[in-house]
Amino acid sequence: MPKPERQVLVCVNSRPPGNPKGSCGEKASQALFDQLKGLLKERGLDGRVMVNRTYCLKHCSRGPVVAVQPDNVWYAGVTPADLVEICTMHLAEGRPVARLLMPDIPWE
Amino acid sequence: MPKPERQVLVCVNSRPPGNPKGSCGEKASQALFDQLKGLLKERGLDGRVMVNRTYCLKHCSRGPVVAVQPDNVWYAGVTPADLVEICTMHLAEGRPVARLLMPDIPWE
Repeated sequence: MPKPERQVLVCVNSRPPGNPKGSCGEKASQALFDQLKGLLKERGLDGRVMVNRTYCLKHCSRGPVVAVQPDNVWYAGVTPADLVEICTMHLAEGRPVARLLMPDIPWE
Repeated sequence: MPKPERQVLVCVNSRPPGNPKGSCGEKASQALFDQLKGLLKERGLDGRVMVNRTYCLKHCSRGPVVAVQPDNVWYAGVTPADLVEICTMHLAEGRPVARLLMPDIPWE
């Protein structure tokens, strides 16, 4: 198959309100997914970069979590502004955004 | 973060019965996810390999779809027996299973 140059995984998993784990879904990650689809289209990257929603990516306390493959780069606490930066720096130019990288904690 | 050596993405997206696109979910992909979690634990690979469920991976007609990152290897029409082979060959030994690779079609 013609593989995507990059695949962006956006966790949209939701847990009931009050669940101690929290979730990316309750931190508006669905809106990040929608925003990213728009950004990729706008910048003509949608033929090179695939974006997919996922269930739990196992870093619930650090959400919203976004992973970029095949770079195996994981981002934590992504905001809409961060996502624009990820799109510009990483997805368009191949340079991961160091300040947004997931801290050194094991997956849950 | 201590990254997974490999991340396996299992599409469990469902569409209503009769939808012309079909879906991985209606082809028992949730059972593949459960099986894979069991296989990884049984073989002591669960600390190295992360498995995640996803929404649509954009190859609906070729489901169930399983992708292995960061290898950017995509499998189509995966059965429970195929999954055992992927686990043994690819996830444990790093050798993708050629006969199961997604054919050369664009993503949807």
